[in-house]
Amino acid sequence: MLMEPGEVCSKVLEAITPAPEEEEEVLSIARSIMDKLRSLLAEEGVEAVVRLEGSLAKGTWLRGEADVDIFVRLKPDVGRDFLKREFMRIARRATEGYKQVERYAEHPYLECWAGGVRINLVPCYDVEKGNWLSATDRTPYHTDYVREHLPEELKGDVRLLKRFLKGIGAYGAEIKVGGFSGYLCELLIIYYGGFLEALRGSMAWRRGTLIDLEGYYRGCEDEALEFFRHHLIVVDPVDPGRNVAAPVRLEKMCSFMAAAREFLSRPSEDFFFPRRPAPPGQEELKSMVRGRGTSILALRLHVGGLVPDVLWGQLHRTMRGLSGSLRGQGFRVLRAGAWSDEVAEAIILFELEASELPPVVKKVGPPVWAGEHVERFLSKNMADPRLVCGPYIEGDRWVVLVRRRWPDAVGFLKAKLSEHGGRGIGVAPLLAQRVEEGFELLSGEEVVRLCRGAEGFREFLAEFLRGRPTWLAGRGGQAP
Amino acid sequence: MLMEPGEVCSKVLEAITPAPEEEEEVLSIARSIMDKLRSLLAEEGVEAVVRLEGSLAKGTWLRGEADVDIFVRLKPDVGRDFLKREFMRIARRATEGYKQVERYAEHPYLECWAGGVRINLVPCYDVEKGNWLSATDRTPYHTDYVREHLPEELKGDVRLLKRFLKGIGAYGAEIKVGGFSGYLCELLIIYYGGFLEALRGSMAWRRGTLIDLEGYYRGCEDEALEFFRHHLIVVDPVDPGRNVAAPVRLEKMCSFMAAAREFLSRPSEDFFFPRRPAPPGQEELKSMVRGRGTSILALRLHVGGLVPDVLWGQLHRTMRGLSGSLRGQGFRVLRAGAWSDEVAEAIILFELEASELPPVVKKVGPPVWAGEHVERFLSKNMADPRLVCGPYIEGDRWVVLVRRRWPDAVGFLKAKLSEHGGRGIGVAPLLAQRVEEGFELLSGEEVVRLCRGAEGFREFLAEFLRGRPTWLAGRGGQAP
Repeated sequence: MLMEPGEVCSKVLEAITPAPEEEEEVLSIARSIMDKLRSLLAEEGVEAVVRLEGSLAKGTWLRGEADVDIFVRLKPDVGRDFLKREFMRIARRATEGYKQVERYAEHPYLECWAGGVRINLVPCYDVEKGNWLSATDRTPYHTDYVREHLPEELKGDVRLLKRFLKGIGAYGAEIKVGGFSGYLCELLIIYYGGFLEALRGSMAWRRGTLIDLEGYYRGCEDEALEFFRHHLIVVDPVDPGRNVAAPVRLEKMCSFMAAAREFLSRPSEDFFFPRRPAPPGQEELKSMVRGRGTSILALRLHVGGLVPDVLWGQLHRTMRGLSGSLRGQGFRVLRAGAWSDEVAEAIILFELEASELPPVVKKVGPPVWAGEHVERFLSKNMADPRLVCGPYIEGDRWVVLVRRRWPDAVGFLKAKLSEHGGRGIGVAPLLAQRVEEGFELLSGEEVVRLCRGAEGFREFLAEFLRGRPTWLAGRGGQAP
Repeated sequence: MLMEPGEVCSKVLEAITPAPEEEEEVLSIARSIMDKLRSLLAEEGVEAVVRLEGSLAKGTWLRGEADVDIFVRLKPDVGRDFLKREFMRIARRATEGYKQVERYAEHPYLECWAGGVRINLVPCYDVEKGNWLSATDRTPYHTDYVREHLPEELKGDVRLLKRFLKGIGAYGAEIKVGGFSGYLCELLIIYYGGFLEALRGSMAWRRGTLIDLEGYYRGCEDEALEFFRHHLIVVDPVDPGRNVAAPVRLEKMCSFMAAAREFLSRPSEDFFFPRRPAPPGQEELKSMVRGRGTSILALRLHVGGLVPDVLWGQLHRTMRGLSGSLRGQGFRVLRAGAWSDEVAEAIILFELEASELPPVVKKVGPPVWAGEHVERFLSKNMADPRLVCGPYIEGDRWVVLVRRRWPDAVGFLKAKLSEHGGRGIGVAPLLAQRVEEGFELLSGEEVVRLCRGAEGFREFLAEFLRGRPTWLAGRGGQAP
């Protein structure tokens, strides 16, 4: 028996709305830290406004996942140095007794843990809209905007959208995910007037969708598209020059669109709370890889000491770079994926049609009229012991058939990764340093060996091989 | 010791200029037929002008290769039916005693043989320039133009250009060759003022070269390029709407350009009189095919009853069509070539990187927002037992990995050629009829078997495998 979308939403909402006791508990932690912070700041003679921001302030947080975001708005004449040293010292004192971790975004901030509750103490400047001095100065304005424009009765819809995006793996603006931020969820609910309305609304999205709540670009939408140059543009109501959806990668935008469409026609709680099948064992994985007919390659490297956003940025760049270099050699790269524990290790996976290519390749040279180039092409290739056929003219160009230099992907990668850490074939600089210290390149069944000792890689590999979003399960069909 | 280009030309010129006795002999044949023709036409009361046209009339024919082109210019009120029946009857009577062959271009004409001399008796209409009634009406004007504009001392240069083009396989406007007609050679010599000047001139050619002797398009060259839309445009001095170089295929234009450049820096008689190596024997050919590392396929079919221009048109179309279909299946087609004895048989050769492909292929489906198409793509592929991975989203599209339907080129071609003669995979209609009656598909060493019984195919196959113009021999280098 199929449920209506609305019914599913009601059931999910029960599960994700915080109970009043939870809210009270979290807020009291927040209040006590804010009080301490205020008195310490006063004691030191620092003029500042201490405010609660984020989903807790906006009432859009998910049960059991509260983040306490405490912002300290400093006067603009306070130097960056103060942010880096004095602020951190005061923040540490205000949260004495909690587990503390210093974090860095554009500037440092303090993360503390009270049981399962994360508390962020973030400095920012108290500036007029538009005169931003640091990246976090907009946050209080975001809070105000949402408080003003999000009616009480739509808070649940924001929670549903967040949970839906988490379920399909598209929640979070961090580079690892490349998905939808909490603020973006709030804006979408304000814009569409509800969760189901937002899902339906996304069916009209295309590459180059513009959502402009405050109508900053009314009448000049084309200029906005040109200015932002992104597949999804949600103009920040508090800053017309900023695209709130800038971190959303095309694939995550499209995953949301596709999942929205699927949910509306086959509603199920599984979209919000995906059921992940138990990962297959060593032998089963091996036989999956063996029987597949493609070639799986894995590059394993040590990545300690990189903060997640930097690490994932480098991993994605490297994945694209190596895929491009393999394609340049004639290998057909079907897919690639990256996994990391974010602490010590990363593994980049490639799936190729085949890791060995036929021995001969066509090399297209210069057009016949390109004097110097022709001379070089002809003399070089006619002296090449790898020449198989030609030179001959095809269309307006000289062409030869030659034996491939790198008919084997593993051989190619091993050789090139050993030269300057693979910088020449697209390994991003910070990872190239790591590659120079050592790497492992595995292929076929060997890849399964990496599941031992790399926590979470087994699940990643199984999903990579399956390559199907869990939310398509409602359709049944062949198991891939 | 390298010779100067001019020295080589002098030596070649000696060999290709007809001796006075030869000229006298051919002209006397021409005169006697023309006399007979004139009196027969008078006898039948047909008003007509009988003229000698072509290279003989213009003094640009090659020793031992005289063609006697006799044109009969009829009044425009003479019907097409007259051309088809009465003219042919009169022409036959005028050449009684010679071997006669009826030929067809746009309209029929008579070909006769007097020893090694070919005599063409061609009807046309005596019209004003521009009021062309049949394709051959321009010929007398061409003759007049060349007689008027080609100085005596440049006739040898025309001969050199013709012989040079023959030597590199680019002489002749027929579809088999797709090269330079005799008239085009004459115009180029008039334009550039000499053979070596024409070679040097061609070094400035590019895709979209315009040569306009009469300056019809002066000041509006871009319009001319747009109007003719061809890589080489030589405006007919007697008809501004006609491109004399229209039959020249890009590859033949470029072969000429490349050979011209090569000749100027490494002059040799071999350009004019190529030395073809003796073709290899059966076993040698087999070992060449075997050791090559590519896959050679051959399609053999019977082609009796097609006139050469139609046959070659169909062969080229079919070659392109089948190459395209193989590429569509993922095969990398390196080269293709067609051979025919023009009487009974044709063979189309393909060289592929490999005739077998890896078993799995990526199938890119519709973008996520294409509702109906998405629905069809997902349900079709999720029910497909060939599914290997997915569906998943890549960029903005749904994608799956599936087992290939046709991992083997021979299997693919055999199956598809057996359906409607391969019309569905690009076999041209007249050849599809022949394919329906039967075909042979061979691969690898088997192909060599075709050399037995197909006169001239051995040379063709050897050159195909070598794939290098003989005129590059002066460079030495690796044998391909």
